[in-house]
Amino acid sequence: MRLLLIGFGAVGQGLATILRDQAAYLLERSGFEAHIVGVVTRTRGLLYQPDGLSIDALLEAIGKGHLDLYPTERGLIRQMDPLDLIRTAAADALVEVSYSNLQTAQPALDYCRAALESGKHVVMANKGPAALAYAELQALGQQVGKFVGIEATVMAGTPTLRLALEALAGCRILAARGILNGTTNYILTQMESGMAYGEALEEAQALGYAEADPTADVEGWDAAGKAVILAAAVFQQHLSLETMPVKGISHLTRVDLEEAQAAGECWKLIATVTPDGGQVEPVRLPLSHPLARVSGATNAVTFSTDLLGDVTLVGPGAGPIATGFGLLADLFTAQRAGQLKKS
Amino acid sequence: MRLLLIGFGAVGQGLATILRDQAAYLLERSGFEAHIVGVVTRTRGLLYQPDGLSIDALLEAIGKGHLDLYPTERGLIRQMDPLDLIRTAAADALVEVSYSNLQTAQPALDYCRAALESGKHVVMANKGPAALAYAELQALGQQVGKFVGIEATVMAGTPTLRLALEALAGCRILAARGILNGTTNYILTQMESGMAYGEALEEAQALGYAEADPTADVEGWDAAGKAVILAAAVFQQHLSLETMPVKGISHLTRVDLEEAQAAGECWKLIATVTPDGGQVEPVRLPLSHPLARVSGATNAVTFSTDLLGDVTLVGPGAGPIATGFGLLADLFTAQRAGQLKKS
Repeated sequence: MRLLLIGFGAVGQGLATILRDQAAYLLERSGFEAHIVGVVTRTRGLLYQPDGLSIDALLEAIGKGHLDLYPTERGLIRQMDPLDLIRTAAADALVEVSYSNLQTAQPALDYCRAALESGKHVVMANKGPAALAYAELQALGQQVGKFVGIEATVMAGTPTLRLALEALAGCRILAARGILNGTTNYILTQMESGMAYGEALEEAQALGYAEADPTADVEGWDAAGKAVILAAAVFQQHLSLETMPVKGISHLTRVDLEEAQAAGECWKLIATVTPDGGQVEPVRLPLSHPLARVSGATNAVTFSTDLLGDVTLVGPGAGPIATGFGLLADLFTAQRAGQLKKS
Repeated sequence: MRLLLIGFGAVGQGLATILRDQAAYLLERSGFEAHIVGVVTRTRGLLYQPDGLSIDALLEAIGKGHLDLYPTERGLIRQMDPLDLIRTAAADALVEVSYSNLQTAQPALDYCRAALESGKHVVMANKGPAALAYAELQALGQQVGKFVGIEATVMAGTPTLRLALEALAGCRILAARGILNGTTNYILTQMESGMAYGEALEEAQALGYAEADPTADVEGWDAAGKAVILAAAVFQQHLSLETMPVKGISHLTRVDLEEAQAAGECWKLIATVTPDGGQVEPVRLPLSHPLARVSGATNAVTFSTDLLGDVTLVGPGAGPIATGFGLLADLFTAQRAGQLKKS
C-alpha cells in the first residue's frame, strides 16, 4: 500500500515510526505492507518518490526542521502543487494528518475529495473533514469504491468507532457519552489534587497536552468536534458546531471541585450524543460512574445500548504512536476492502 | 441462517428473545435472518422442525417446564439421538448454550465436533469446549471452512475477543487483566459497603448471580476458565486449569477489605493472562486503577498493548440478553464468513 501523507507533524511521524518499526510484524501477522511515497507539508517542504521514501531519512530530515534536508536521489520530486500531486501520484491512500480546522476543514477537505475522485482511500487524524463533511466523503467513497477512515479523529487509536460500528453491530446504540478531550481531563484531575485552574493549565501546556492557545481545548471545542464526528459516524446525523450547546471548563474553580468532592462526586467535561442531538458541558458525576475515575489525559466513551446496557471503552485519547495506530487500523480496513473488491 | 440450539436455559431463551424481538431490525440493518430449527435439552425434551420453530411457542413451552408442551404440527420431530440430529439436521449453525463443564467439556465438545464435521458453524456460550479444546475446534473449523465463535464465553456479549482480535489488530497484546466473574465482584462490592462474606454470598444467590453451589464462582474457577479461553484466543496458548494458580475470594474478610479501604485500595478478583501463563487471585488495587471502580456484577478487561498502552473495556459479564447478543455477534461473523466463501 503506497501512502501519501498530508502533514508531517507528531502524528505523521508517529505513523511513519510504526510503519518502520513494526514492518516485519505487520507483514507476518496481517499481510500488511505500506510505503510512504509522498509527504506534503505547508511550511516544511514536499517530497514525492514513486519508488518509496526512506522513513529513516524522512524522520531525520523533519527532525532537523525541513524536508529539503532529505537526500537527493533519482526520481525524487521536491516541488509540486499539492492538489496536482494528490490527483496524479501513484498512491493507494491519502493520509490526512495536517492541522485540524474546525471552521472550514480546508484545505484538507479539498485534498480528501481529490484523493477519492482519483481513486485513493482516505484516512485521517485531521478532525476538520470528519466533523464537517463525513457524510459527503463517505458517500463519495462508496461511489468510487474507496474507504474513508476516521477512527483516529475521536480517541486517537483507541478503537471507538470500530467498537460502535463493528463489535456492537446488532445492538441499537441509544447514546454515547464520553470524556473526549485529554487536556481538560488532565486539568480537572490536577485541580482535584489542589492546583488552581491557571496552574494546571500551565502544567498541561508544559507537558505538551495543551496548545499555546488553549481555547479549543478548555472551551470545549475539541470535544465538540469529536461529538459531531460521533454523531455522523454512529447516528448518521449532522450536528453543527454553531448550534450545538458547548460549554468548557474555564469557569470552574477549586471551590466547585471541592464542593463536588465533598458530595462524593467529580467534575468531568462530558460530550453527549444521541440520535436527537449533542452537547458538551462539565457534569458532576458520582464516583461510582464508569467515567468518573477516568483520570489524567486518558479518554473514555460509554455507549448505552439496548441489548448490552452500558459498554465503556477507556484508552489513550492522544499521542503520536496511539494516533498513528488509529490510522494504521483504518489502513488495514482499506486494504481488506480493496482485497474483497478484487476477489 | 438455520440454528440448532443445544440447551435452552436462560441464555438460549435470551437469544431466542432477541431473534424474535429484533428480527426486523437485524434484517434491515445487517441483512441477518435466523430461524431456530431445533432445540435439544437434557431433561426438558427435544424439538426438530426443518421448516423452523415458532419462538413464541418455544418460549411458552419452556416457560411451562417442558418442550413436550410445544404444539404438535406436521413435520415436527420430538425424539432423536442428539448426535444424530446434529449430524443430519438441515441447519447452518450449532448454538451450544448448555451447562459449562470445565472438567471434560462433554457432551458439548462431541456435539461441537459433530457439527463442524457435518458442515455447520459453531457458536457457544458454554465455556467447556472453549476452555478445553478451542485450538482443536478452531483447527477443525478452518479445515472444513466453518466459523467457531466463543465471544459469549468470556464477558457475555461485551465484545472482548472482537476488541482484542479485530479492533486492536496491528498492536501486540502484552497482557490481559480482568474482572471476569460478576458474582465475586458483586460480593466484594457488597462487603465494601459493610456486609459480611456469608451475607453477601446469600444476597448474590437470592439475586440469581451465584449458583446454589457457589464453589465455581467464589473459588475462582469460573474466572480461571475464562482466563484459559483468553489465553487460547489471544495468545494461542494452552493453559491447564489443573496447573494454573487459582485462588478465590472465600478467605477474604471484612477486616481485609477495611484495611485495603484505609490504604485507598480495594480487593478485586483479577484474572491475568500473558504469553507466558495465567493466574487468578484476589489483588489489592489502588482506587486510581481502571479496574478498581468496576463494581457490582459488571465485568472488565484491560489489554496492555505496545502501541496504545492500556485499553480497558467495561460491560456486562452475564445476563440472558447480554449473552444472547454475544452469540448473535458470532452468528453475524459466521454469516459473513459464509458469504465471503460464496463470493
